[in-house]
Amino acid sequence: MTAPTRDPAEQDRDLGFGSVVSRESRQRLLNHDGSFNVRRGGLRLLESLSPYHQLLGMSWGAFLGLLAAVYLVINCLFALGYLACGPGALVHPLTEATGIRFLDAFFFSVQTFATIGYGSIHPVGIAANLLVTLESLVGLVMIALATGLMFARFSMPRARIRFSRHAIVAPFQGGTALMFRAANERRSELVGVECELLYSRFEVKGAARQRNFYRLPLERDRVTFFTLSWTVVHPIIPTSPLYGETAESLAASQAEFLVLLKGTDDTLSQGVMIRTSYTAEELRWGKRFVSLFNPPGADGILGIDIRRLSDTEPA
Amino acid sequence: MTAPTRDPAEQDRDLGFGSVVSRESRQRLLNHDGSFNVRRGGLRLLESLSPYHQLLGMSWGAFLGLLAAVYLVINCLFALGYLACGPGALVHPLTEATGIRFLDAFFFSVQTFATIGYGSIHPVGIAANLLVTLESLVGLVMIALATGLMFARFSMPRARIRFSRHAIVAPFQGGTALMFRAANERRSELVGVECELLYSRFEVKGAARQRNFYRLPLERDRVTFFTLSWTVVHPIIPTSPLYGETAESLAASQAEFLVLLKGTDDTLSQGVMIRTSYTAEELRWGKRFVSLFNPPGADGILGIDIRRLSDTEPA
Amino acid sequence: MTAPTRDPAEQDRDLGFGSVVSRESRQRLLNHDGSFNVRRGGLRLLESLSPYHQLLGMSWGAFLGLLAAVYLVINCLFALGYLACGPGALVHPLTEATGIRFLDAFFFSVQTFATIGYGSIHPVGIAANLLVTLESLVGLVMIALATGLMFARFSMPRARIRFSRHAIVAPFQGGTALMFRAANERRSELVGVECELLYSRFEVKGAARQRNFYRLPLERDRVTFFTLSWTVVHPIIPTSPLYGETAESLAASQAEFLVLLKGTDDTLSQGVMIRTSYTAEELRWGKRFVSLFNPPGADGILGIDIRRLSDTEPA
Amino acid sequence: MTAPTRDPAEQDRDLGFGSVVSRESRQRLLNHDGSFNVRRGGLRLLESLSPYHQLLGMSWGAFLGLLAAVYLVINCLFALGYLACGPGALVHPLTEATGIRFLDAFFFSVQTFATIGYGSIHPVGIAANLLVTLESLVGLVMIALATGLMFARFSMPRARIRFSRHAIVAPFQGGTALMFRAANERRSELVGVECELLYSRFEVKGAARQRNFYRLPLERDRVTFFTLSWTVVHPIIPTSPLYGETAESLAASQAEFLVLLKGTDDTLSQGVMIRTSYTAEELRWGKRFVSLFNPPGADGILGIDIRRLSDTEPA
Repeated sequence: MTAPTRDPAEQDRDLGFGSVVSRESRQRLLNHDGSFNVRRGGLRLLESLSPYHQLLGMSWGAFLGLLAAVYLVINCLFALGYLACGPGALVHPLTEATGIRFLDAFFFSVQTFATIGYGSIHPVGIAANLLVTLESLVGLVMIALATGLMFARFSMPRARIRFSRHAIVAPFQGGTALMFRAANERRSELVGVECELLYSRFEVKGAARQRNFYRLPLERDRVTFFTLSWTVVHPIIPTSPLYGETAESLAASQAEFLVLLKGTDDTLSQGVMIRTSYTAEELRWGKRFVSLFNPPGADGILGIDIRRLSDTEPA
Repeated sequence: MTAPTRDPAEQDRDLGFGSVVSRESRQRLLNHDGSFNVRRGGLRLLESLSPYHQLLGMSWGAFLGLLAAVYLVINCLFALGYLACGPGALVHPLTEATGIRFLDAFFFSVQTFATIGYGSIHPVGIAANLLVTLESLVGLVMIALATGLMFARFSMPRARIRFSRHAIVAPFQGGTALMFRAANERRSELVGVECELLYSRFEVKGAARQRNFYRLPLERDRVTFFTLSWTVVHPIIPTSPLYGETAESLAASQAEFLVLLKGTDDTLSQGVMIRTSYTAEELRWGKRFVSLFNPPGADGILGIDIRRLSDTEPA
Repeated sequence: MTAPTRDPAEQDRDLGFGSVVSRESRQRLLNHDGSFNVRRGGLRLLESLSPYHQLLGMSWGAFLGLLAAVYLVINCLFALGYLACGPGALVHPLTEATGIRFLDAFFFSVQTFATIGYGSIHPVGIAANLLVTLESLVGLVMIALATGLMFARFSMPRARIRFSRHAIVAPFQGGTALMFRAANERRSELVGVECELLYSRFEVKGAARQRNFYRLPLERDRVTFFTLSWTVVHPIIPTSPLYGETAESLAASQAEFLVLLKGTDDTLSQGVMIRTSYTAEELRWGKRFVSLFNPPGADGILGIDIRRLSDTEPA
Repeated sequence: MTAPTRDPAEQDRDLGFGSVVSRESRQRLLNHDGSFNVRRGGLRLLESLSPYHQLLGMSWGAFLGLLAAVYLVINCLFALGYLACGPGALVHPLTEATGIRFLDAFFFSVQTFATIGYGSIHPVGIAANLLVTLESLVGLVMIALATGLMFARFSMPRARIRFSRHAIVAPFQGGTALMFRAANERRSELVGVECELLYSRFEVKGAARQRNFYRLPLERDRVTFFTLSWTVVHPIIPTSPLYGETAESLAASQAEFLVLLKGTDDTLSQGVMIRTSYTAEELRWGKRFVSLFNPPGADGILGIDIRRLSDTEPA
């Protein structure tokens, strides 16, 4: 029960970018920073929202700003509620009020929401006390949510891998190979790191021009320890879809090389993933990478200089 | 030490639905929304309960309602406790009470449980203070539970994959193939997505009529990036258990196609799974899917329109 | 670079139970409930402690009791501290004290630790206020720990799989096979469930009597959906290490069958594992399992009765 | 589309330690405790920081000390803020102040940040109340962070595997083999444990002296249950890169054996990983490990003594 033999040109045609992409696109599919250059339309706004993903994805500044804004808005709403309970609902037996009733109610709300409860202002009557009951429940729920989100944001496994700015086509074992380099910028170790390299280009088939995808086999597709750096190598041998291609032919077919790196963060024991891509214009021909290694110091410890990650020299 | 050769008709007979299902059932096994159509009996009520799963599975409205109800019930119980401590147990040195002793005790309980503690009402005597000690402990435990549950609900990895309403039998490489389409409705990316497709039908074997299961090999069972859409394809070649079947024969054998999709959510680095199923009645013959792709706009970005996901045209 | 050919009798000798187990043991290795019957000696007490595992492993009653005990002890210690600050350190401007100075200090400590702070008792002087500062910090840390632990306990993925009380040796495809059944007691679904079955027995080799391990190949070792039940089957064909064994010979060699089931909890998208074992005495020969399936009701929904999971009939 | 044949000496050359390590280093790559002996240079300080990893990686003493320090600093800053609001901003209607205005403000800040709020000191005026609003928000955020971090630290899956101090070259099945032993020090079980063993040495190639890496095939590379101990065995057969090597030749080539163990913690259902390494100097030739097993006691339970893990005897 084997799959039918297929026209090699159709192999790996459908890689989640859709089965037939006959219309031409001038844009790369994947940006160098790993974000996709695509658009999913036809979803109603609410369907496409995923608040959890959005709250995790925004910057810390935006997140903390949003938190503060929600805090202020909730306290303003409850302040208006306390005002609506009438003049005797909040009393200050021992201190002077600020003189601005809204502000008094707002500060009382803060002391309630945050469960401080000095008592210098306190509620009198059923209405105000019911509002306090509601606010305390809302406060508990919101604090629980904020706690969970802070933790989730903080703990989200985000690898910080630096890729060389260009991929190169360099001499390799008597032939040539497509290569790029990656290094771990974090002090945390990554282990069991695997790489997938996809090659995408437009091909003309009759009247249609369609984007096809090929998976490029690698010299090695897994390293046990990703401690210093890794040079990912696809040998351009006769069976490679890149065999015989030139800088010009790759540019003409809008070639793009899509990279997915997966591994396990050693500290967190969590999987991490990172993507990047190289277009035909980001290829350098006849270059090779310079060594990353520093001469060992007096202590004999092996070291690299990540600033040289993208540096090449003529091959 | 190989497994013995088996009668092909018995292959994959037991897929977790039980080894012998000789009795006839008119229902599908798996609903389109991924829930199972089965019943596990013989468990005592308590055994089958899994409070954590149930608290995670309910809607947000029900969950927040339950939280509020628990909050009210606990505070009512403690209010009764404070009342039982006698008239002097709670004092209001500076403010008037509401006049209703239960309400005073209830509001005091709220201020204690939520750790607000204005002090406008406070406990006097050993009994009331011991009750406060207990309530503060209960409060800490319940707030801890609520915080954990809110976070767990929020962070639960739930993919939102839309499947085409029908599967189709369409021309494919000179023959035909069974196909369906799926698209990611979330803005978050899924990577490394794998698909398993099971085919289930009733077969008559002597006097017994039993449900058998077959795993259908796919043209590709994994996509690296599930960015736009994926057309899952099972080629109906001579070795396929579907070879020679018609719409009528599939309906007669109560055929059902069970789908499991697994992948990794890129933002959360967490595995997600989603199921669906197609019955014989949900198959369309001699159709093909229309293209999902929009003409690229001025910016040249590739886009699809998910509303067309289920649209077909005559092949 | 292949591993050297090995004496079949040595195959899978070392499965984490240690390479040479020449001394005889009368006990089973693994209990029916999945706990191991082994002892790791030579560790200093502190080394072998893993507080997190122990706090997760204890019963809810024990855990909540421990929490309450820690709460009381901490508050007693701080109460003693406040007493040591002298008679004027805690004042009650508006209410009468309980008359027992330790109790007043204890209740004040509770109001501080739980961050209630009514203010009916409050600290005066530098010493008492410094102690409040310390207690508030301890309170925050302990509440954080308790919150985390409650959540971790609640969310710990624990599958509840019921195994048949006995394994059976039953007719299978013209020969015989070793079989046992398992069913999911939880309402949550398990998917992608895999089974490993190990066979362990004592063998005499020269003067030594040592426990050897064999992995038994299964008719199928994975089910996609573990919805109702799964009958795990090892066919006793000539290549099986069980071929030719009898109830007596298995008992004489202290045979034991170790089972590991692994799968993914559908709700939590988390891996779960469960173990069990069958000794030679827990084998039934010449029996077969009765059907678990209920006649479908008026709604035609497929159902099983888990109470029949261990029921057998003569083959 | 197969990878090109490679010079065996180049096999597995690049294992994440970088492709060309031509410069000599006197240090081992991996310490016995699993930390790496490498240096990643060229990163700006902020880039290489990963606060979450650092907060998880520090000792409990350092972490709690840091927490206390942050707590004190924040309260000091807010105390200064309250002082800046002027003499009437904090009032003590019922108690005497400490007489030191900074201390009064500091204790008030503690009561606010920790949400205690006795009310014996309370804020008056808009400025002080705004500062309270800010402090309550900062308090919520910091408590949320601390809660998350405490939980993350506590729950971080950390296996405690003890490795034998030396690896040995011992007789094995008529030849010899490289072996080391490992035992689980935790009471929690590990299941599905896999081992990877890498062999690294310097080789002279023309003028260059470069470090090459080889993966050593193991007699078994996975145990289902890691209950007592595991003796990891690499048979030194003719295809092994160790074949014909001596203690002297390994020392001369600065040989190092890198070990990665991966498994699943049974209680947490979480993956754990642990690394170690043996240098040529940490090899013992012509020894074998003594048995770890204790004579079974009256209860017949199998037991080991981990203190003997590194003990060897002449082979």
